[in-house]
Amino acid sequence: MVNHDLKIFEELESNVRSYVRSFPTVFKKAKGYKMWDIDGKEYIDFFSGAGALNYGHNDEKMKQKLVEYILSDGITHSLDMASEAKASFLKKFNDVILKPRGMNYKVMFPGPTGTNTVESALKLARKVTGRTNVISFTNGFHGMTIGSLSVTGNSSKRKGAGIPLQHVVTMPYDNFVSEKLDTVEYLDRFLEDNGSGVEIPAAMILETVQGEGGINAASFEWLRRIEAICQRWGIILIIDDVQAGVGRTGTFFSFEKAGIKPDIVCLSKSISGYGLPLALTLIKPELDIWNPGEHNGTFRGNNPAFITATEALTYWEDESFEKSIAEKSEKITEFLNQIVDKYPELNGEVKGRGFMQGISTPVEGLASDIAAKAFESGLIMETAGPEDEVFKLFPPLTISHEGLEKGFKVIEESVRSLVSTKQPIAN
Amino acid sequence: MVNHDLKIFEELESNVRSYVRSFPTVFKKAKGYKMWDIDGKEYIDFFSGAGALNYGHNDEKMKQKLVEYILSDGITHSLDMASEAKASFLKKFNDVILKPRGMNYKVMFPGPTGTNTVESALKLARKVTGRTNVISFTNGFHGMTIGSLSVTGNSSKRKGAGIPLQHVVTMPYDNFVSEKLDTVEYLDRFLEDNGSGVEIPAAMILETVQGEGGINAASFEWLRRIEAICQRWGIILIIDDVQAGVGRTGTFFSFEKAGIKPDIVCLSKSISGYGLPLALTLIKPELDIWNPGEHNGTFRGNNPAFITATEALTYWEDESFEKSIAEKSEKITEFLNQIVDKYPELNGEVKGRGFMQGISTPVEGLASDIAAKAFESGLIMETAGPEDEVFKLFPPLTISHEGLEKGFKVIEESVRSLVSTKQPIAN
Amino acid sequence: MVNHDLKIFEELESNVRSYVRSFPTVFKKAKGYKMWDIDGKEYIDFFSGAGALNYGHNDEKMKQKLVEYILSDGITHSLDMASEAKASFLKKFNDVILKPRGMNYKVMFPGPTGTNTVESALKLARKVTGRTNVISFTNGFHGMTIGSLSVTGNSSKRKGAGIPLQHVVTMPYDNFVSEKLDTVEYLDRFLEDNGSGVEIPAAMILETVQGEGGINAASFEWLRRIEAICQRWGIILIIDDVQAGVGRTGTFFSFEKAGIKPDIVCLSKSISGYGLPLALTLIKPELDIWNPGEHNGTFRGNNPAFITATEALTYWEDESFEKSIAEKSEKITEFLNQIVDKYPELNGEVKGRGFMQGISTPVEGLASDIAAKAFESGLIMETAGPEDEVFKLFPPLTISHEGLEKGFKVIEESVRSLVSTKQPIAN
Amino acid sequence: MVNHDLKIFEELESNVRSYVRSFPTVFKKAKGYKMWDIDGKEYIDFFSGAGALNYGHNDEKMKQKLVEYILSDGITHSLDMASEAKASFLKKFNDVILKPRGMNYKVMFPGPTGTNTVESALKLARKVTGRTNVISFTNGFHGMTIGSLSVTGNSSKRKGAGIPLQHVVTMPYDNFVSEKLDTVEYLDRFLEDNGSGVEIPAAMILETVQGEGGINAASFEWLRRIEAICQRWGIILIIDDVQAGVGRTGTFFSFEKAGIKPDIVCLSKSISGYGLPLALTLIKPELDIWNPGEHNGTFRGNNPAFITATEALTYWEDESFEKSIAEKSEKITEFLNQIVDKYPELNGEVKGRGFMQGISTPVEGLASDIAAKAFESGLIMETAGPEDEVFKLFPPLTISHEGLEKGFKVIEESVRSLVSTKQPIAN
Repeated sequence: MVNHDLKIFEELESNVRSYVRSFPTVFKKAKGYKMWDIDGKEYIDFFSGAGALNYGHNDEKMKQKLVEYILSDGITHSLDMASEAKASFLKKFNDVILKPRGMNYKVMFPGPTGTNTVESALKLARKVTGRTNVISFTNGFHGMTIGSLSVTGNSSKRKGAGIPLQHVVTMPYDNFVSEKLDTVEYLDRFLEDNGSGVEIPAAMILETVQGEGGINAASFEWLRRIEAICQRWGIILIIDDVQAGVGRTGTFFSFEKAGIKPDIVCLSKSISGYGLPLALTLIKPELDIWNPGEHNGTFRGNNPAFITATEALTYWEDESFEKSIAEKSEKITEFLNQIVDKYPELNGEVKGRGFMQGISTPVEGLASDIAAKAFESGLIMETAGPEDEVFKLFPPLTISHEGLEKGFKVIEESVRSLVSTKQPIAN
Repeated sequence: MVNHDLKIFEELESNVRSYVRSFPTVFKKAKGYKMWDIDGKEYIDFFSGAGALNYGHNDEKMKQKLVEYILSDGITHSLDMASEAKASFLKKFNDVILKPRGMNYKVMFPGPTGTNTVESALKLARKVTGRTNVISFTNGFHGMTIGSLSVTGNSSKRKGAGIPLQHVVTMPYDNFVSEKLDTVEYLDRFLEDNGSGVEIPAAMILETVQGEGGINAASFEWLRRIEAICQRWGIILIIDDVQAGVGRTGTFFSFEKAGIKPDIVCLSKSISGYGLPLALTLIKPELDIWNPGEHNGTFRGNNPAFITATEALTYWEDESFEKSIAEKSEKITEFLNQIVDKYPELNGEVKGRGFMQGISTPVEGLASDIAAKAFESGLIMETAGPEDEVFKLFPPLTISHEGLEKGFKVIEESVRSLVSTKQPIAN
Repeated sequence: MVNHDLKIFEELESNVRSYVRSFPTVFKKAKGYKMWDIDGKEYIDFFSGAGALNYGHNDEKMKQKLVEYILSDGITHSLDMASEAKASFLKKFNDVILKPRGMNYKVMFPGPTGTNTVESALKLARKVTGRTNVISFTNGFHGMTIGSLSVTGNSSKRKGAGIPLQHVVTMPYDNFVSEKLDTVEYLDRFLEDNGSGVEIPAAMILETVQGEGGINAASFEWLRRIEAICQRWGIILIIDDVQAGVGRTGTFFSFEKAGIKPDIVCLSKSISGYGLPLALTLIKPELDIWNPGEHNGTFRGNNPAFITATEALTYWEDESFEKSIAEKSEKITEFLNQIVDKYPELNGEVKGRGFMQGISTPVEGLASDIAAKAFESGLIMETAGPEDEVFKLFPPLTISHEGLEKGFKVIEESVRSLVSTKQPIAN
Repeated sequence: MVNHDLKIFEELESNVRSYVRSFPTVFKKAKGYKMWDIDGKEYIDFFSGAGALNYGHNDEKMKQKLVEYILSDGITHSLDMASEAKASFLKKFNDVILKPRGMNYKVMFPGPTGTNTVESALKLARKVTGRTNVISFTNGFHGMTIGSLSVTGNSSKRKGAGIPLQHVVTMPYDNFVSEKLDTVEYLDRFLEDNGSGVEIPAAMILETVQGEGGINAASFEWLRRIEAICQRWGIILIIDDVQAGVGRTGTFFSFEKAGIKPDIVCLSKSISGYGLPLALTLIKPELDIWNPGEHNGTFRGNNPAFITATEALTYWEDESFEKSIAEKSEKITEFLNQIVDKYPELNGEVKGRGFMQGISTPVEGLASDIAAKAFESGLIMETAGPEDEVFKLFPPLTISHEGLEKGFKVIEESVRSLVSTKQPIAN
């Protein structure tokens, strides 16, 4: 039956389609942390559109604002002309997010996808410094257009470029080689030595927690030392907060607790709140040397997304949302630690931070099997890492405790069934 | 007053903002070919979101479908999972557009912007052929991310890359050097001669009518000869129909009357019908050798856009829409010819095709002045070309005859007032 | 027997060896325009080391100076330290060559090969202008290291790089497309149009007569127009006179009669006079902004070559040498025209200038067959062009009239025998 | 007076000239380890043409062969045609060098400079593997043409390229970061991790002792581990033995004692024995997949250099030469250790191996001052390292014990005088 409904995709859609292969059903409806397919089957969503649905599906308040706006024939598409919806968003973003955090940034609207904000950040860093090279980090993921792909580590994705990817030097992320190796010292050595073959770059670009790269969380200390190196050499520090931002790691920006002030911040995914395409590039005012239109895009004025994005900021007007994320995050950590302890066959390691955690297992194929098994039982969950060795928990931040526990239950059952298949355990 | 309302953009938005400088007011509402600012002033839209609003603003039927969908909590964001809304779009696109035109293509959904579809097309062409170089054409415009920017001609936009743009050879577009020079013969000579320094490329990418590049329309004969060269040498022919497609030049695809069958077609802008972000890459089945997920993006499943895009296709179910475009196009041509004749001081040349026409004038700054003057009188109109030497008429395809004439009147008044300022004429 | 002697090369030398395949014997001795192999067979040399032996083999006066120098334990190798031999060369080159021609240039000694002087010229042009791109011309040949190969047109040579060759735009050389097409107008159009995708380059590099590319001679008018474009746009004009220089086309520099003053001139091949490795880069003083050692090489102070190079300049102290070259060049032209007329089956075209002439024939493989046949009869002659479609006459400039005629005779016999094999002719 | 004689260089030679500034006199004559300027002043040569004169100046036996050859009108210049002189060299090189060491290599003659052999090696490695990237090492030096410069670490030399240098990843050389950091483990981690952003390269290229880079000697163990990694991943191992080869570190090839078998070996500098330009690329037979002429150069058949190169091999016919190098090397080490001990103000560290040793001192400018002082006292000595922080002893391998001691004396006096100037010492 499912096969029948999926046939249209097999016949008409390109082979590039991907998640439909992991989650082979046709979805119809969604609300909060739940999704339903056309047969009415209910799913718990521990995937959240890869971080684009941090507030869950179809949030009721945002929905009302959105429908009102559409019914009023508000401007839908405006390129970068001024619109009332855009003005409201800019003001509220400044009042609720930037000012209270002591952050002074100009807001740029690139094309409404993550890779477009990264491309704009790289261009600007090169313009500001007059340098061409950029330092990226092992297992970083920044997007699939050529500029962003150049700073992405994954070899099969890089190969897809069809051309050599240039103007980039990859340095080891925190704990890349081993816990003993101080990767910052290493990086610093390359910059200091005139014979190292590595010139002072225009920028460093990094995620504070690497999502696609395997849920690797850099320590706050490491982030501060990277910032210090950037300041010492006049290097632009770009934080790609497309996935880790908007509350996913516990605070609006993922780097708040590290106490750093990046020169440029990339935001997308959950910034519109409702899953509508939107992206922002935040720029320190002194670096905002763009010429008008020097980077542009047809959909940089997606007004329905401004409407929901403005409403979404209401979540951040007081501390209650952060607190609830913290509580639930702790619950996730506890659950994952318990799984690792209880199922030693996993040889698991808990990774990540906040609502961006997972378990890495060296058993080949196991993480994928666990995710597949969970789907059968009605839970949507993704894997990550260069060998898909991590299964990761990405529930909406708004999920209820009950929802979390239902999800945990499915996951534990999937783990138990797969572990016990492989070898009997004395649980 | 306007200054006051625009202040928030000056304070908070990056200097990269552009159209807000040409059209300095805050827009609030729009319908069909009209827009209103927050002070209630009405504007005639001869710009159509740079071709993203071919059906006008907030089309009533699409609006109803969109609101219904949102109210029903239909899936909003789905990455590339299967959804009911996506299935409906795929089916209708196949039934209404592809099949009747005898076109057999697989549909790919890249990130929902024009530059993302171009990036996907270039990647695939390189993968299929194993070659790195691409031939682009003078004054082509394909987007602002590094891959697309590499095939874009405009020098100031290229400079914005901050790195040398590579793997591209630019060849002369139809009529580039002069009407006498046969640019296809020239191109062919480079491909034939083993010592030319130009290798057989992976692809050629081109627009049939260059929008940003100055409303240059290639002849159908030229397009057919380019296709023949591509076939002779095994070169992938990519038509970037992002701006010229979806009816803008008179037919759904801009190349229909030329009788060519591109290997890959890029669509975006008006494909969603309602101004919502969406992009498609159409691929001949035998070239669809993507690995799953080899090119991806968070917002490739923008379901609200599928809803409006599906409804928009209704316009193409019979021939009436094409006919009305043809009638009105002719009217535009007549009007422009008349302007050129009546105002010899313009030294004007009518350029383009269909709803993508304009007048090129060698008088420095004049085209921009005419557009600025028209805005004062309530008409939104853009310029194009490497020196902004063309003012272009991009009304919605759905505009009424009355709307067209109102717009013509404003334009003629702008022309007349500027021409007469500069030198008295014996009209 | 020959096989036996060549066996050592087959066994021990890399497959990359090339001319030994066209001229399969082991050479032992040489004098003037003659060479002898180890079996004592005599050959007429119409190849001159691809232009490195313009004064013939082992010129007696140079030989005496060279042996004296060696016997006196003069400095052999000096990097770029000062030596007496180098001082003498610099002085005489200035007195005999530069000053009388009103040329004011600084002399740079790169590594002693043609490709090294080209690499130095490209580096300097990029440094002076701060630009990266260089314009080269179809069928240009400038060397085999990556920088020089980038500006070389031949596709199989380019492919040997193993990497995409970048930072270069190839423009059509004089008469590339057809005699009607004005290639300078074309080039100019690309530079003028901001949307052409071709930025103003650091330099243009060209040969006045393309040797490897098929003995294509640019008209003096074309050269002057290219110089004018370079001056208009502030582009460095580099003349690669490695093969066409040192008298090969009739004057010391190949561009003298065109009346142009290149910014940088590359010399090598015959500059040492005796076939010893040496190369010069001549630089207008205002462009000589090198830092000390910014381009270097171990063998840039090859003192035995300075000794012979100094002696070789004696040929240019009065006009007699130029006159004799002119007389003999005319003889070569006459001979070639006669061949073309007499053997219409060749469908031949006489190409080139001075002692750098040849016949191009569209008959596949014929030029190579003629050269091979000539070798059997004791004449060494090479082919050129992207399809090896030209056989070229490169005798030493010092050859006697008798020597020339002996060579002509062999060539005509080769032509006749091959032409008659293919089809009977009514001679 | 010296100024007067140097005037001609200041007036006529490019500013790029370099060593003439460190050694400001005009040299006239040389023999063994001695040089004389035009005023008859004698110098001890501890520089040896940067390693091109390992057998000293104007070796008497080579000289005789060379003069005989020239007087007999032997072939001087032969491109890559077969000549008797070349055959003799190939045979003796195989008999004396390759066979006894159990090495089976094809010999390629690129253009006669170090950078040309490196360019040929990189091209071939890319052709063999079909990959574009190459791994080079920090502080490596491989030449000044674009291909070789890409794998060179020095930032000011790289900057001279005027274009971004690509297709290269720099990895840390032995002991680069610190003695604790295992750079091979680090490198291996990058190759193993699919998300590292570093793809499996075509080749690794390295010097066993880095000359220009600061006399850094890799341990034999490190070299063996690098070879093992290359074998594991199918990476071509290129040893650039241009400076460290031909006996400089104690054995003919610098890597003999490490017991490795590189895939490709680059030789130049001292290979001709007499300071004449020559270069070889040694290639494992199974990798010798060149097409004829795929890499070429006008002076690849420099026959006078074959003559002296053949005679030079006589030094290696028995073990006596190696023994004498070993004895004298030990003497150099002792001397340098003693200097470091005796002059603690140097804060010196002895670096290198064999006849390629020096002292690194962190005192800014001191190494250069010591070399300058020594020159005043009649000793020619160079500095090395990214900050010119090393003075290096490069005497001819044929120097007598007396010559060595005379040199030591000058060096110690220079050190003493400079150290005592700066601060009184209690010696």
